[in-house]
Amino acid sequence: MQEDVKTTTLVFQGRVFDLSVQEVVLPNGMAARREIITHPGAVAIAALDTDGCLLMVRQYRSAAGRVLLEVPAGTLEPDEAGSPEVCAERELQEEVGYKPGSLEKLGGIFVAPGYTTEYIHLFLATDLTPSRLDTDDDEMIELVRVPFEEAVRRCETDEICDAKSIVAITRAWAVFQNARRG
Amino acid sequence: MQEDVKTTTLVFQGRVFDLSVQEVVLPNGMAARREIITHPGAVAIAALDTDGCLLMVRQYRSAAGRVLLEVPAGTLEPDEAGSPEVCAERELQEEVGYKPGSLEKLGGIFVAPGYTTEYIHLFLATDLTPSRLDTDDDEMIELVRVPFEEAVRRCETDEICDAKSIVAITRAWAVFQNARRG
Repeated sequence: MQEDVKTTTLVFQGRVFDLSVQEVVLPNGMAARREIITHPGAVAIAALDTDGCLLMVRQYRSAAGRVLLEVPAGTLEPDEAGSPEVCAERELQEEVGYKPGSLEKLGGIFVAPGYTTEYIHLFLATDLTPSRLDTDDDEMIELVRVPFEEAVRRCETDEICDAKSIVAITRAWAVFQNARRG
Repeated sequence: MQEDVKTTTLVFQGRVFDLSVQEVVLPNGMAARREIITHPGAVAIAALDTDGCLLMVRQYRSAAGRVLLEVPAGTLEPDEAGSPEVCAERELQEEVGYKPGSLEKLGGIFVAPGYTTEYIHLFLATDLTPSRLDTDDDEMIELVRVPFEEAVRRCETDEICDAKSIVAITRAWAVFQNARRG
């Protein structure tokens, strides 16, 4: 099913991602054009405190044109490709001011595999201890604590409509439900 | 929390999306640069057949560099912005060759609100009747029937790792579970 890439033309180099246009040949011999965002990848964290609340963030999103409720997340630095855990620890500290005692992998997701390479590594963070809040200057975010089961319910409606947050929360919930069932 | 957009510069006009660079001023007075993909939006459909199986598609994804298992989905045409249902019906016919007797809204998701405007409208399709398969020439896809509960389990691991598919399937599952609980 694989496509044969004939040419790749870089059309934009950005701060977060690059954009290329590929001319490809499909297995059936047809030619096609693919517009591809090359993104370094990211992490997103379902962080559960000792009161059973998820630490979430509200922030204005230019692209969405509105404020969204999301789990803490961030883009991998160039040297973090092989260690998303390091990125997850950093982002948790930057966005909500906590250090995780335990960080469990929840797999990952392609956010829009039709046009971006971005893959988000998902984590469940527990045994949180407060640390210094170290927000990026160009991020204005507000910490919101949401009881775990209420967050799951909000993911089922549109109250949480950020894809990575929904997958991180529902996978974290499944970990706890499966553990309870033994 | 809103940002004040000072300038917007179009840097790429593509087949599927455009790319712009925005200079913005944050509520705290800081200047920041946003790289924004303007995307027309899309639909994704959890389509349940009378045997209790979800109709899913396997396809090679250039951006992911691999074959992914996804729910049927597609991009809104320019005249479909106000009627994603029309797009959902068309995509279901194009990708798996079925017409839905019933189409229920499952809300929607921003796939990557940090840099793309793409919002995917999610649907649960039932009462399916076979129709003519009308695949786009530049799509090579394979229909796969997955029992509903198995699909939910696969969403909890990495066997399904496409964000829109996971949200569509888990929200569709929640609809059935909530109906069962009354």
